[in-house]
Amino acid sequence: MAGETRGLTLVFTGNGKGKTTAALGMALRAWGQGLNVLILQFIKGGWKYGELKAAGRLGTGFEMRQLGEGFIRDTGEEGMEEHRRAAQKALEEARRAVLEGKHDMVILDEINYAVHYGLVDLADVLEIIRSKPSRLHLVLTGRNAAQEVVEAADLVTEMREVKHPFAAGIPAQKGIEY
Amino acid sequence: MAGETRGLTLVFTGNGKGKTTAALGMALRAWGQGLNVLILQFIKGGWKYGELKAAGRLGTGFEMRQLGEGFIRDTGEEGMEEHRRAAQKALEEARRAVLEGKHDMVILDEINYAVHYGLVDLADVLEIIRSKPSRLHLVLTGRNAAQEVVEAADLVTEMREVKHPFAAGIPAQKGIEY
Repeated sequence: MAGETRGLTLVFTGNGKGKTTAALGMALRAWGQGLNVLILQFIKGGWKYGELKAAGRLGTGFEMRQLGEGFIRDTGEEGMEEHRRAAQKALEEARRAVLEGKHDMVILDEINYAVHYGLVDLADVLEIIRSKPSRLHLVLTGRNAAQEVVEAADLVTEMREVKHPFAAGIPAQKGIEY
Repeated sequence: MAGETRGLTLVFTGNGKGKTTAALGMALRAWGQGLNVLILQFIKGGWKYGELKAAGRLGTGFEMRQLGEGFIRDTGEEGMEEHRRAAQKALEEARRAVLEGKHDMVILDEINYAVHYGLVDLADVLEIIRSKPSRLHLVLTGRNAAQEVVEAADLVTEMREVKHPFAAGIPAQKGIEY
């Protein structure tokens, strides 16, 4: 029906820069339209001060919650267990946020990465996609999106790295990398 | 030198959704850091109400200017001439904004597309990249980025379309497409 809100499931994946960044841009656009946006972070470290400060400055209707542990370096059993526990808690919060219907857009940042590393079950993510209210926009980011997530999504973009400044020895820059 | 700002040249290209969106996210992150951001639009129609309203709500330090004509449908000579004139004006404004040094980040939205369609000379764009102040972050978006622009950039991501809802007959959604 014309004008009716059809909530989309969007996926930003691939090895290039721009996945979380595009999700942030999408959140900003939606917020500009007066939509109520929630961003949940599955892997801590993907966000830096730039977006957190921005969220603080935007105020109402734009909320970010850091939930996960940092990027996976320690792959020892104990380290993985901690990551898994944090990711499971994030998943619970995602499920609640998606089902409670208070938001117009929910962004699950780095959830694909969490699935890829076995921190979160693919079946649980697919269940969240299937059970989301029809008007909710759901955005899933992170490299290595599972094929089943791609199939369940309405829009999928792969961010492919063509060139990255770290490879040229340029350090991370304020406002770009953090 | 550690901590010194090294302005980067970033390119978001490819046929997938997320180029302008990632530029917006980058602008939001930079704005969150207190940087002064200017976004110039070379092809009107790429932006919709979402980002324009958001820019209005963000206020100081986040400015968007619509400069170009709409997307190219009429390829007749007269139509192209109008597009070219608008794009040249946008180029002038871009040059001025880059050189005057009042901003920390300048985003030239859809400039790659404008070059591809011959509305703007590649040499002029390369000259802007070369002459930018060293601390300025310059972001160029649009599909079909010229190889020379890719070579001149520090970071390049290709947004590759894997799946798009329009293909499935789903109309544009508020907060997503506009």
